[in-house]
Amino acid sequence: MSAIEPRRAVHAFFMQRAVELARRGWYTTRPNPRVGCVITQGNVVRGEGWHERAGEGHAEVRALDDARARGNDPKGATVYVTLEPCSHSGRTPPCTQALIEAGVARVVIGAQDPNPSVNGQGIEALRAAGIEVVTGIMAETCAALNAGFNRRMTHGRPRVRVKLAMSLDGRTAAADGSSQWITGDVARDDVHRLRAESGAVLIGRGTLAADDPSLNVRLPGDWMPPLRVVLDSDLTMPAEARMLGVTGDTLVATASDDAARRRALESAGAEILTVARQDGGLDLAQVLAALAEREINDVLVEAGPTLAGALTRAGLVDEFVIYVAPMLIGDNGRALMALSGAVGLDDAQALVFDNIEPVGADLKITARPALSESE
Amino acid sequence: MSAIEPRRAVHAFFMQRAVELARRGWYTTRPNPRVGCVITQGNVVRGEGWHERAGEGHAEVRALDDARARGNDPKGATVYVTLEPCSHSGRTPPCTQALIEAGVARVVIGAQDPNPSVNGQGIEALRAAGIEVVTGIMAETCAALNAGFNRRMTHGRPRVRVKLAMSLDGRTAAADGSSQWITGDVARDDVHRLRAESGAVLIGRGTLAADDPSLNVRLPGDWMPPLRVVLDSDLTMPAEARMLGVTGDTLVATASDDAARRRALESAGAEILTVARQDGGLDLAQVLAALAEREINDVLVEAGPTLAGALTRAGLVDEFVIYVAPMLIGDNGRALMALSGAVGLDDAQALVFDNIEPVGADLKITARPALSESE
Repeated sequence: MSAIEPRRAVHAFFMQRAVELARRGWYTTRPNPRVGCVITQGNVVRGEGWHERAGEGHAEVRALDDARARGNDPKGATVYVTLEPCSHSGRTPPCTQALIEAGVARVVIGAQDPNPSVNGQGIEALRAAGIEVVTGIMAETCAALNAGFNRRMTHGRPRVRVKLAMSLDGRTAAADGSSQWITGDVARDDVHRLRAESGAVLIGRGTLAADDPSLNVRLPGDWMPPLRVVLDSDLTMPAEARMLGVTGDTLVATASDDAARRRALESAGAEILTVARQDGGLDLAQVLAALAEREINDVLVEAGPTLAGALTRAGLVDEFVIYVAPMLIGDNGRALMALSGAVGLDDAQALVFDNIEPVGADLKITARPALSESE
Repeated sequence: MSAIEPRRAVHAFFMQRAVELARRGWYTTRPNPRVGCVITQGNVVRGEGWHERAGEGHAEVRALDDARARGNDPKGATVYVTLEPCSHSGRTPPCTQALIEAGVARVVIGAQDPNPSVNGQGIEALRAAGIEVVTGIMAETCAALNAGFNRRMTHGRPRVRVKLAMSLDGRTAAADGSSQWITGDVARDDVHRLRAESGAVLIGRGTLAADDPSLNVRLPGDWMPPLRVVLDSDLTMPAEARMLGVTGDTLVATASDDAARRRALESAGAEILTVARQDGGLDLAQVLAALAEREINDVLVEAGPTLAGALTRAGLVDEFVIYVAPMLIGDNGRALMALSGAVGLDDAQALVFDNIEPVGADLKITARPALSESE
């Protein structure tokens, strides 16, 4: 048994509560990170807060306000915060300043903020003001609150999750193309949660042609509609596509300069993004960089075998989310993924399984590339 | 909350112990069922026993002996036994007789014995002797101890488990055929346990040609070598096949009457079984019936896509055991299963997932046909 220092155990106890608070902003803080904050005095909770929506109060400020509203002066208090407090003015003034002015004695931090304009400077500002700073409490859990935000800050692209649905023998559709209802209700509801927690949902031209999806979100409660992104090299998307008729924004990435098609899609409400061609498709890294510029933290790819394979081959996939239906379709069913040029086992994409869980009658397997350029 | 009658809770407590005892014979009781027995007086354990090996004492007799060896007269005792006591003389005298002669007061039974020569007659014999009989205590758990034995008794064929290993995208090998080490050490050890608990390990001619496997068991402790079965319609198996050079018996099922090949294989130690042709292969039901006649309870099929698909199509699979390696091989890899004639989703084989567990870096998924002729 490894020992834990009692004070760090107390810190972990209150940090866990701060994590729970941060999760309340799961679907609403975009493009900002999810942050939770707990203020204690004598190991008693005096105030709590979390970030709920960009432009509204940060977790620390809301927790300080909460403490004061409960009649507690935060002077001398310990502040638990899942993410390093910001030291720069964004939509709101820096949180370090609010903590210093409140006269808190100690700030316990979960994850360091990878945002280049914070990244340790928040910690420095607090220490310079004579506040004790404790770091690395539940750091992994706290960082996991913002996997997409962190990816964007460190790599200049969103986190890419590829969602696939297949039979147990790795087929996405039968030979005749039929694939509706491979997975069950519970898995489909789960996909709506994935969409709602993503800043963008991305499909290829093939999926558009096959399914004409609306890519909408059907979920109760408060959430933000994701941007719909279609990769359409030749700009052949019809202006009558279903997604252009429903709420929310659509971005069409293309290498075509056909002005007439562009105008037709723009009239139907789409925005056009011009990117370079690459390997018979579009420059995927360029598309992702453009999405990062739009402050999109998470992209959910609901792609067919070609696009899923191209992203995998390019080392641009952070996570595969695969729903496995309890059926065997057989060897003439449609393949899960095209990995062009793969011949031997050395050409296979190595993965690490992160999680397996039943969702209704189906399984949900979460895996990530064992090695990728992005690690 | 549903209530449980206190006396049944006590029965379940001791039956659980009897199940644990039965499991001690997991690898050694073939072709007999696994059975455990606990004898109590005043809710104190007075004797325990389990069946260890065909021809040796049954669980009830061993528990009675154990009680007496501990100085306890089993007169008036309660006897917990996972399987209905036998009422017929086999290799040993009937257990009902031993229980009656010992003067026990009550026999609590887990699962009824589906063996046509028992099947309720053991219960009747005990009741006729004035013994109180309680049935159905942990019946499902107790029946699961002997899934293969039960299948053989009720259907005249062994339980058929199809073991497959694949990448996450359902490929058993890369395009160049390379498949060695798709799964890891822990999964391979697990396969040796599957082999050791099966009376026969069955492969097709294609797997023999591709892998020339020895199908041996590498496992510590006490276990019985399974019969190796090769389906070889045209009797083209070479007498130099690796499995003919290692310990254990090999049965070659064929439709060929080529006397020279038969003699060559027999000289190399193989036994030849002649069966009818069917659908371009062998009559699989006839092969399984022949194995049941040899008192084989469980067959582990380590087959390629053709045989696995044929067994599935024929409704002869009881369970799929699928090891999933953390890799993507791509659409030019080899398919998991050929389901001839499958066109639409209606032609897919519906499954039920029974279990998922990590084995090392791999996953192990256990599933069974949702509907089969054998249900």
